Amino acid sequence: MKNTIVFALSSSVGLAEDICKELGLELGKCEVKHFADGEILVELGESVRGKHVYFVQSTNKPVNSNLMEILIGIDACKRASAASITAIIPYFGYARQDRKAKPRQPITSKLVASLLERAGADRVVTVDLHATQIQGFFDIPADDITANGLIADYFKHQEGLGEIVVVSPDHGGAVRARNLANALGAPIAIIDKRRPKPNVAEAMNLIGDVDGKTAIIIDDMVDTAGTLTAGIKMLKDKGAKAVYASCSHGILSGPAIDRLKAAKLAGFVCTNTIDQTENQKIYPEMTVLSMAPLLAGLIHAVEENSSLSEVLAHAFDD
Amino acid sequence: MKNTIVFALSSSVGLAEDICKELGLELGKCEVKHFADGEILVELGESVRGKHVYFVQSTNKPVNSNLMEILIGIDACKRASAASITAIIPYFGYARQDRKAKPRQPITSKLVASLLERAGADRVVTVDLHATQIQGFFDIPADDITANGLIADYFKHQEGLGEIVVVSPDHGGAVRARNLANALGAPIAIIDKRRPKPNVAEAMNLIGDVDGKTAIIIDDMVDTAGTLTAGIKMLKDKGAKAVYASCSHGILSGPAIDRLKAAKLAGFVCTNTIDQTENQKIYPEMTVLSMAPLLAGLIHAVEENSSLSEVLAHAFDD
Amino acid sequence: MKNTIVFALSSSVGLAEDICKELGLELGKCEVKHFADGEILVELGESVRGKHVYFVQSTNKPVNSNLMEILIGIDACKRASAASITAIIPYFGYARQDRKAKPRQPITSKLVASLLERAGADRVVTVDLHATQIQGFFDIPADDITANGLIADYFKHQEGLGEIVVVSPDHGGAVRARNLANALGAPIAIIDKRRPKPNVAEAMNLIGDVDGKTAIIIDDMVDTAGTLTAGIKMLKDKGAKAVYASCSHGILSGPAIDRLKAAKLAGFVCTNTIDQTENQKIYPEMTVLSMAPLLAGLIHAVEENSSLSEVLAHAFDD
Amino acid sequence: MKNTIVFALSSSVGLAEDICKELGLELGKCEVKHFADGEILVELGESVRGKHVYFVQSTNKPVNSNLMEILIGIDACKRASAASITAIIPYFGYARQDRKAKPRQPITSKLVASLLERAGADRVVTVDLHATQIQGFFDIPADDITANGLIADYFKHQEGLGEIVVVSPDHGGAVRARNLANALGAPIAIIDKRRPKPNVAEAMNLIGDVDGKTAIIIDDMVDTAGTLTAGIKMLKDKGAKAVYASCSHGILSGPAIDRLKAAKLAGFVCTNTIDQTENQKIYPEMTVLSMAPLLAGLIHAVEENSSLSEVLAHAFDD
Amino acid sequence: MKNTIVFALSSSVGLAEDICKELGLELGKCEVKHFADGEILVELGESVRGKHVYFVQSTNKPVNSNLMEILIGIDACKRASAASITAIIPYFGYARQDRKAKPRQPITSKLVASLLERAGADRVVTVDLHATQIQGFFDIPADDITANGLIADYFKHQEGLGEIVVVSPDHGGAVRARNLANALGAPIAIIDKRRPKPNVAEAMNLIGDVDGKTAIIIDDMVDTAGTLTAGIKMLKDKGAKAVYASCSHGILSGPAIDRLKAAKLAGFVCTNTIDQTENQKIYPEMTVLSMAPLLAGLIHAVEENSSLSEVLAHAFDD
Amino acid sequence: MKNTIVFALSSSVGLAEDICKELGLELGKCEVKHFADGEILVELGESVRGKHVYFVQSTNKPVNSNLMEILIGIDACKRASAASITAIIPYFGYARQDRKAKPRQPITSKLVASLLERAGADRVVTVDLHATQIQGFFDIPADDITANGLIADYFKHQEGLGEIVVVSPDHGGAVRARNLANALGAPIAIIDKRRPKPNVAEAMNLIGDVDGKTAIIIDDMVDTAGTLTAGIKMLKDKGAKAVYASCSHGILSGPAIDRLKAAKLAGFVCTNTIDQTENQKIYPEMTVLSMAPLLAGLIHAVEENSSLSEVLAHAFDD
Repeated sequence: MKNTIVFALSSSVGLAEDICKELGLELGKCEVKHFADGEILVELGESVRGKHVYFVQSTNKPVNSNLMEILIGIDACKRASAASITAIIPYFGYARQDRKAKPRQPITSKLVASLLERAGADRVVTVDLHATQIQGFFDIPADDITANGLIADYFKHQEGLGEIVVVSPDHGGAVRARNLANALGAPIAIIDKRRPKPNVAEAMNLIGDVDGKTAIIIDDMVDTAGTLTAGIKMLKDKGAKAVYASCSHGILSGPAIDRLKAAKLAGFVCTNTIDQTENQKIYPEMTVLSMAPLLAGLIHAVEENSSLSEVLAHAFDD
Repeated sequence: MKNTIVFALSSSVGLAEDICKELGLELGKCEVKHFADGEILVELGESVRGKHVYFVQSTNKPVNSNLMEILIGIDACKRASAASITAIIPYFGYARQDRKAKPRQPITSKLVASLLERAGADRVVTVDLHATQIQGFFDIPADDITANGLIADYFKHQEGLGEIVVVSPDHGGAVRARNLANALGAPIAIIDKRRPKPNVAEAMNLIGDVDGKTAIIIDDMVDTAGTLTAGIKMLKDKGAKAVYASCSHGILSGPAIDRLKAAKLAGFVCTNTIDQTENQKIYPEMTVLSMAPLLAGLIHAVEENSSLSEVLAHAFDD
Repeated sequence: MKNTIVFALSSSVGLAEDICKELGLELGKCEVKHFADGEILVELGESVRGKHVYFVQSTNKPVNSNLMEILIGIDACKRASAASITAIIPYFGYARQDRKAKPRQPITSKLVASLLERAGADRVVTVDLHATQIQGFFDIPADDITANGLIADYFKHQEGLGEIVVVSPDHGGAVRARNLANALGAPIAIIDKRRPKPNVAEAMNLIGDVDGKTAIIIDDMVDTAGTLTAGIKMLKDKGAKAVYASCSHGILSGPAIDRLKAAKLAGFVCTNTIDQTENQKIYPEMTVLSMAPLLAGLIHAVEENSSLSEVLAHAFDD
Repeated sequence: MKNTIVFALSSSVGLAEDICKELGLELGKCEVKHFADGEILVELGESVRGKHVYFVQSTNKPVNSNLMEILIGIDACKRASAASITAIIPYFGYARQDRKAKPRQPITSKLVASLLERAGADRVVTVDLHATQIQGFFDIPADDITANGLIADYFKHQEGLGEIVVVSPDHGGAVRARNLANALGAPIAIIDKRRPKPNVAEAMNLIGDVDGKTAIIIDDMVDTAGTLTAGIKMLKDKGAKAVYASCSHGILSGPAIDRLKAAKLAGFVCTNTIDQTENQKIYPEMTVLSMAPLLAGLIHAVEENSSLSEVLAHAFDD
Repeated sequence: MKNTIVFALSSSVGLAEDICKELGLELGKCEVKHFADGEILVELGESVRGKHVYFVQSTNKPVNSNLMEILIGIDACKRASAASITAIIPYFGYARQDRKAKPRQPITSKLVASLLERAGADRVVTVDLHATQIQGFFDIPADDITANGLIADYFKHQEGLGEIVVVSPDHGGAVRARNLANALGAPIAIIDKRRPKPNVAEAMNLIGDVDGKTAIIIDDMVDTAGTLTAGIKMLKDKGAKAVYASCSHGILSGPAIDRLKAAKLAGFVCTNTIDQTENQKIYPEMTVLSMAPLLAGLIHAVEENSSLSEVLAHAFDD
Repeated sequence: MKNTIVFALSSSVGLAEDICKELGLELGKCEVKHFADGEILVELGESVRGKHVYFVQSTNKPVNSNLMEILIGIDACKRASAASITAIIPYFGYARQDRKAKPRQPITSKLVASLLERAGADRVVTVDLHATQIQGFFDIPADDITANGLIADYFKHQEGLGEIVVVSPDHGGAVRARNLANALGAPIAIIDKRRPKPNVAEAMNLIGDVDGKTAIIIDDMVDTAGTLTAGIKMLKDKGAKAVYASCSHGILSGPAIDRLKAAKLAGFVCTNTIDQTENQKIYPEMTVLSMAPLLAGLIHAVEENSSLSEVLAHAFDD
């Protein structure tokens, strides 16, 4: 892999370092400058001519700055004649704006895909896209890998959980919950929010049964955790003996950590698609699973032109 | 609207005629020839120079031929200097291939979007896309209108339904079911297919309660109706006093109609996004709601540059 | 050639197998599914990451389905990170729609070229395009190889033909007839259709002389064979002692084979750009020349980066 | 037509003035500067913001300079926010390089089409393209109008021609000759160049009969006139009582006019797609038909959004 | 101008309001939401179908957020079928990254241009681009208007300046200084930074003479004002009796205002391309010239399809 | 470098030969035909399939013909499946048209960049672009190398120059002069043209001091040399003891050489970006520095995927 360079940008330095360790590579030299007027300059510290370049950069908060960093980095590599440029964006920001929910709305998720292509990305790698259709927003190869295997493995190795039920926090997440439930051999339940009549407050209801069971809520991301903690409370009211919350992407904006702490979860599990170093300091009970082995396996497969599906299938084994 | 021409292609002649009646327009002159060797020629029978052209063509079976017709028609209009070309594709074929479900799969739905753009379409209009994210597969304006209002209105005006529950036939359809349930002020239930252990047959389970209620199954499309009729049976087993099935797109391939007849539904409701003239002859009990007023309203709004959202909101009123 | 994969799609399985035999390759694993609703899914059965992929697929009848198969296959390979994708389309359908013969006509041939590029083809290979200008419809490299050498060789090795005259069935084919005539050292004649006065039936005339000679009609394709058999009759009326008909592409739609049988030809010669397996069962007198060696030679030259012109020139030798 | 501006560039000033007279427009103000170092600057002398701009510019000799003038003019209009830009290129240079005649050749004709589109042309208008397939080299609307009607009218109004035969100077022109022959109710003949054996000089032969008739040679263009004058001589040897030569585009390079004068033609007829002012001074016997009425009719139809086919059909009437 | 909508985004609300007042238009309804996770949503509050939309948004600090706002706004308008979308970016951020100053650098300014085009902008308007060549980074029409006339007018109407010399703060700004000097009928001087020997500190020198004169430093932008205040000191040391500093874009990052205050300028003049409301509170001596009349004049000219050059020339008159 | 081919086109045959000598390569076989009607055909004399192709062609006079040659050559290579195509354009014509100096002007420099990309160039190499921002006109990698090092080396090795001052002939060239001055450890002066009052002739003034010094005027190009010789005269009037003129590109149109001879320069120095063979015959005193070593170094670095910056830095050493 002598023609491979992995560059870390601001949001994913730790993850990129871990990936490089797995691959036995030095992290690529690249300096990101933020000037007083808010502008960014990405300066490559080594030649990329004829090289296969990978940028690792999640587009979590500050999302626009992080997005601009990777666009600028791609532009620099393209103009410096890199052989190929892969954008590894473990957490793909703006993913929830993936359709026109109302007339005259943007589809920002597609916009971001177009900007990455326009800047010169040749391939993109993501983890658990909010909607898998977002792969189709790209004309370049877009590989979306899932942390579901990691999360399932985690719970399989937990002891004393008793009877499990996997809970989807909303209707949109029912398929994801079903997948995890299949891996754990468990039933599912769905939190159903409805408005009984117009102008009446939305009520939260449960479809399915959690009484006496360990409930594992699974979502792709946890942002402010408001709805999540309301759901946790309801599950406990409905008799769940313990509640875990898990997700791929721990955004954890604003009051999220306070809410999670107050919710008295049996456990909160997420991955390092978003860097959790600071959050772990104030919420040491959280469990952070590392995506580095999977992402390193993907880079290895790509560089060796071996089949990605075999590598990733192996990675999911327990 | 003297600069507006609506052309019908093979799959949607009846719908296009109805749209034109609503608009007070003559259907545009256009001949589609199918030659002995299978090739197609679309010949425009009147000048389109400077005109706003609308093609109405669903891409149901024969999907590839229907798709090619509209691509060729668009090419002809582009080269004949039409001012704008809108593809109205009430049923958008290949919509289920909207993501890579496994490695090395195509995303044919995005491919079709790209082909329409490449041929020269300036705008696309669809009805109840299988996934609303498909709007984002287009760089041109893509308006997806929904038949949900029509379907809700239909059930609101049915008498003697008693207590209603809206049923989603799978996890992916839970949001759609919730929307219809909101319009009807009803709860929802979800059919949950799971595999209890590896190598054990998938079992069908119900999350929610239908006992003593009128169940209305809602899906975006009904194809061979195999899963649907299994679901109907289970709902009856679970105590539903009557079962309706409804969808936007009645594909009704192969054994579908025989299965629906055998399922002893209280009613089967779909729209004319796919022409149902032949099906109605052999299954006269089916109810076919017309999309013509909504689509005509959309064309009118576009040509008058008035707000689409107002027109369509009005159309949904009952 | 360990990085080379040749995939067969529905219309050209036999030809692709023959090409692979010439190259000493296994045919690539790839499954084409046709569903009940008419949709197609192309599933690649092996990794194409970093590979040079060749699809072999003529777009004869069912032309739209065959075209869609290769577009979908290309999309799948592009998204699976193939290094390059070559579309070998021995018979390129829609080739006769290569210009606006009347105002407001499409140029479907260019449309098809654009769709192939949009899907992601990197190169295209065809055989005896109806008009060589169609190469210019592509921005990607487009190599058109000719079966003329094969056909000339065939006739050079026929015995007892006596004095030969090569006949073009219309004015548009005069250059092709001249080329074959040059290879055979023969004169040419041209069938001249004209309308003596407006509203009088078109008359068929012969420019040149066939009396007492063996006439070899050469065309790029034979479709329904109506005009061809009228021409054969005239040549016999003008004293031709024997008539052969030859073409690159045996489309042979509808009544074509019945007509050819009735025309009492001395021989009918075409190639396997279109699969003739079924036709040969009902018309065993036809001669089918194989394009496999030439196409295999082309793939070999491309993969070895050797000059295509040298390889193909050698292939034409007799 | 207050939003219409017609600009003349260097090669077609006279024709553009005639078009403007037909339309009752002032010629647009536009200065073309040629600097000492060979660079060109096109400066628009009036605002084009929101206007429909037409450039009239044949790309005859100096072809590269004339081509660059129109590319630069288009760039200037695009950047100055013209509403649409039409390139009227009555003689489309490089048209003979429309396919790869040998491996490794460019397809310059397609290249030129791409350059015009890239610069920003929205539509192109040509006269009698060397191959009508060149229309398909464009993705923008490309209208090719023909001077055949003008030429046919000319000969219909000539007196004393007696029995006519239309002669194609080579195989590639047989269709064009047939069209003119149809208009004149005449038979055709074809000049057939062949090489009897390898390494033997090419011989010129005639297919068809001209004895005692008036022969009208028709070609799309006459360049150095070498082959043409050899053909004229042969027609006279074969008994033609008089020979006319006609073409759309009188390129007339190098020795052409001397050769035509020496050939003792009954008449030489071309159009003003290429400016013939200087040639007429030294060869006053030549007949130059004006394309201005047809091109003005086309602009009028486009600007009024009326059907082009009706206007042009009318123009062909005699 | 009933089809014209002007939307303000976050950085330029005041300027957009002033432009609308000049035009007699209501400001368009449009809400910009910033979520807890840093993502942005631009929601259009009124229909833009068939409308000519103008966004007013400088991309000063926070530059990436401001840039993303306008990209998202453009995407929303494109998908909502706006007739045209103009991005008015009075201060065009990242303009200084307009070339590769060293190998492997990005050209972020071109990247930003490409992103705007990709999102769907049809036209762009800027004020005093750092390098006028940036206009050429766009393929869409790009109009760069200058505040030089405003600044020149300001100084022409100041009394008691005595003999003036215009000073360029570096070599790159010499042309700009010459232009202002021409307008004021004054000589120029240039501040010349040089490094006498390698590894010796850069020295600041003056080319030209300021002794006893009023020096007006002109630059396109003032950022941290470090070099500027060093230059002011030197001018005073060289005998300037008073020093003014002027620029189009008052970025005024970090210590800038403190430095300007300490520099004891006779005056500091900039425009409102960047909103100066907050800066004026702490530095009330600064003079802020409004670009609203010029930008309103430009919109008026565009909407009326009148010549921009006439309108702007008039605007520059004093 | 067995996959590397360097082709010379008409304007740069000598330079391409020198580059090949440096690289130890044979010059690629390629014939450029100019026909009687002004059209050009570029025929590649060897296979380029899978090869890295470099064209060397300056676009000096005849600029349009030279530009067309390289566009056609690129098209031929693209269609013949070259692996990559690099356009080395040592003198990049039309570079001065790099912005809209007045409304409604083209930006021809950007147009040329777009045409090169559209034809199929993958990379471009230039020498001392008139404005370095032109790099940003390209989306493909564009490397601009400078002859400044060569010129600085030349003067460092001249003896007896005494005290040096580097002179910029106008404001726009001040940065270039500063760079050369830094390399020589010298001060700079700037020729300042101003118009004292409207309608008064422009006057030439000097900012800085040349008295008793050796003045070295540096510009990027010398065209007709009119302003240059006026500047030389003024420098002598101001006391310069000797004047050298130097530039990268010796265009030397029209009266340039006569003027240079009459100006009694101490020396005129340029490079061979433009072929000077003919000029040297009539002006043998001129010094022509060769760019071949630098350009060969660049090709070598690209083909070996080594860092360009290291190679070029080394090349600049003295």
